Amino acid sequence: MDKGQFRKALKTLTEDHLHGAGELTRMALQFAADSALHAECKDVDTLKALLASRALELSGCRASMAPLANLLRNWQQGVAAMQTEKLEDARWQAAELAMTLIQQSRNAMREAASHARQHIGESKTIITHSLSSTVLEVFHQLKESAVRAIITESRPLYLGHRLAKRLSEWAVPTTIITEGQMGLFVRQADLVLVGADSLMADGSVVNNAGTYLLALAAHDQGTPFYVCCESFKWRSAEMADPELEQMSPAELGIPDYEHVTGANIYFDRTPAWLVTGWITEHGVSQGSVRD
Amino acid sequence: MDKGQFRKALKTLTEDHLHGAGELTRMALQFAADSALHAECKDVDTLKALLASRALELSGCRASMAPLANLLRNWQQGVAAMQTEKLEDARWQAAELAMTLIQQSRNAMREAASHARQHIGESKTIITHSLSSTVLEVFHQLKESAVRAIITESRPLYLGHRLAKRLSEWAVPTTIITEGQMGLFVRQADLVLVGADSLMADGSVVNNAGTYLLALAAHDQGTPFYVCCESFKWRSAEMADPELEQMSPAELGIPDYEHVTGANIYFDRTPAWLVTGWITEHGVSQGSVRD
Repeated sequence: MDKGQFRKALKTLTEDHLHGAGELTRMALQFAADSALHAECKDVDTLKALLASRALELSGCRASMAPLANLLRNWQQGVAAMQTEKLEDARWQAAELAMTLIQQSRNAMREAASHARQHIGESKTIITHSLSSTVLEVFHQLKESAVRAIITESRPLYLGHRLAKRLSEWAVPTTIITEGQMGLFVRQADLVLVGADSLMADGSVVNNAGTYLLALAAHDQGTPFYVCCESFKWRSAEMADPELEQMSPAELGIPDYEHVTGANIYFDRTPAWLVTGWITEHGVSQGSVRD
Repeated sequence: MDKGQFRKALKTLTEDHLHGAGELTRMALQFAADSALHAECKDVDTLKALLASRALELSGCRASMAPLANLLRNWQQGVAAMQTEKLEDARWQAAELAMTLIQQSRNAMREAASHARQHIGESKTIITHSLSSTVLEVFHQLKESAVRAIITESRPLYLGHRLAKRLSEWAVPTTIITEGQMGLFVRQADLVLVGADSLMADGSVVNNAGTYLLALAAHDQGTPFYVCCESFKWRSAEMADPELEQMSPAELGIPDYEHVTGANIYFDRTPAWLVTGWITEHGVSQGSVRD
């Protein structure tokens, strides 16, 4: 992966608004592995320096996504600590490290989903917002357990249509609603289940804009609200608050009127007091008792 | 207006998802006036009976809209009480009565907006959801007062684009957001202002789905939430709770997937404890002090 290819990879990561933080992090690690194997450099030290700089660039692509920073930092530290002095060995070790982290991330996602499956049980109706690979995995694991889905269309990119397609393939009875109807339908669900782009140290959840509204409605109507994601999504208390990414307003398809502009902030932050439980590969942590 | 034309009018009223309750009520009264002038009948008694039956049909078109029932009932009572025995006089009196009610409704709307304008004052940012003729009138009255607007796109029919077009003509600086972003933007507004399709006897507000979510977010973030509408929109305590109208899911434009259906409920109900104040032609009633 030469400089030009790497620029292109960064652009792909920055502009992908269809995949969640977990999948984009695994994609970034794939770019890291490719860089390790193919970047032009003359010895181990220049390789390490180059990979350190690329890790930093990859992890900076998406400010709202904690796992990108977490796993790229893990990778970069592993690369820095490599002992070999042979360039080819160093390339393979660095690439293998990235592939191992990808595998760990996938396993964590599946285990988190498995804990969710056990916690949720049979014959439940789950309401969700946005498209999370972890929530998708939960539906996959529950598809023989009479699960039902209520999902939002998730404007502006209609991520809900993509989710509906997968649920349809698994024969999960699914109702799609506009985001505006979340308050009407949250009561019909046994629980809310969403993924996360980042979990903050205080337990608050950064996820696609609208999640906070769903959490408020769930709280008001007594429907439990769960977040399910890999623990790599926790941001340590030392990490600065993430900037909430603003995407192009063109995605909203607004006619061109003078004095009118669109806003397209992708993420909002749901405070911890609205969260009933956090589900990761380590199990279910219950939040405070709901009032 | 013969039977066929009247059927067509009923269909128009039932299927119009672009206009709010105020405008549709005035449209229904126009159909009532036309019926009075042109319906086929041989004497005053048959005219009265026919108009009573048509008033009932018109008022039943849109269950979520209180003013339709209120003003058509007023009209029908006025028609029943008419003293004349001359058919032509009766026709004119009944039509005039409908036109007077239309004018009263328009005046009430403008006066409610005028109270809102005085209450809001200069240089304020208003966030709204859906397209209300009363809220539009408030913006019209405030357009020289440095007002700014944050409006939702209001899926599924993008009513927000229509609102944006009007605000653009008045040079009101306007930001359009998806419904999902309401929780992010409510804090940037000085107040929420919405219209209503019905006001319930307990002060709760029936309005386009998503209003309840905006009210929850406003409450959570301390932004005052006002409803502005004519007092004809109050439902008396004796009236049954309105059914919340469900429109065709086809409006959502969901791809055709097996096991997947769309839901398209147009209205939700915002409880009174989330309302800071109700503004009608009689002035501003403040709700309970906000916690």
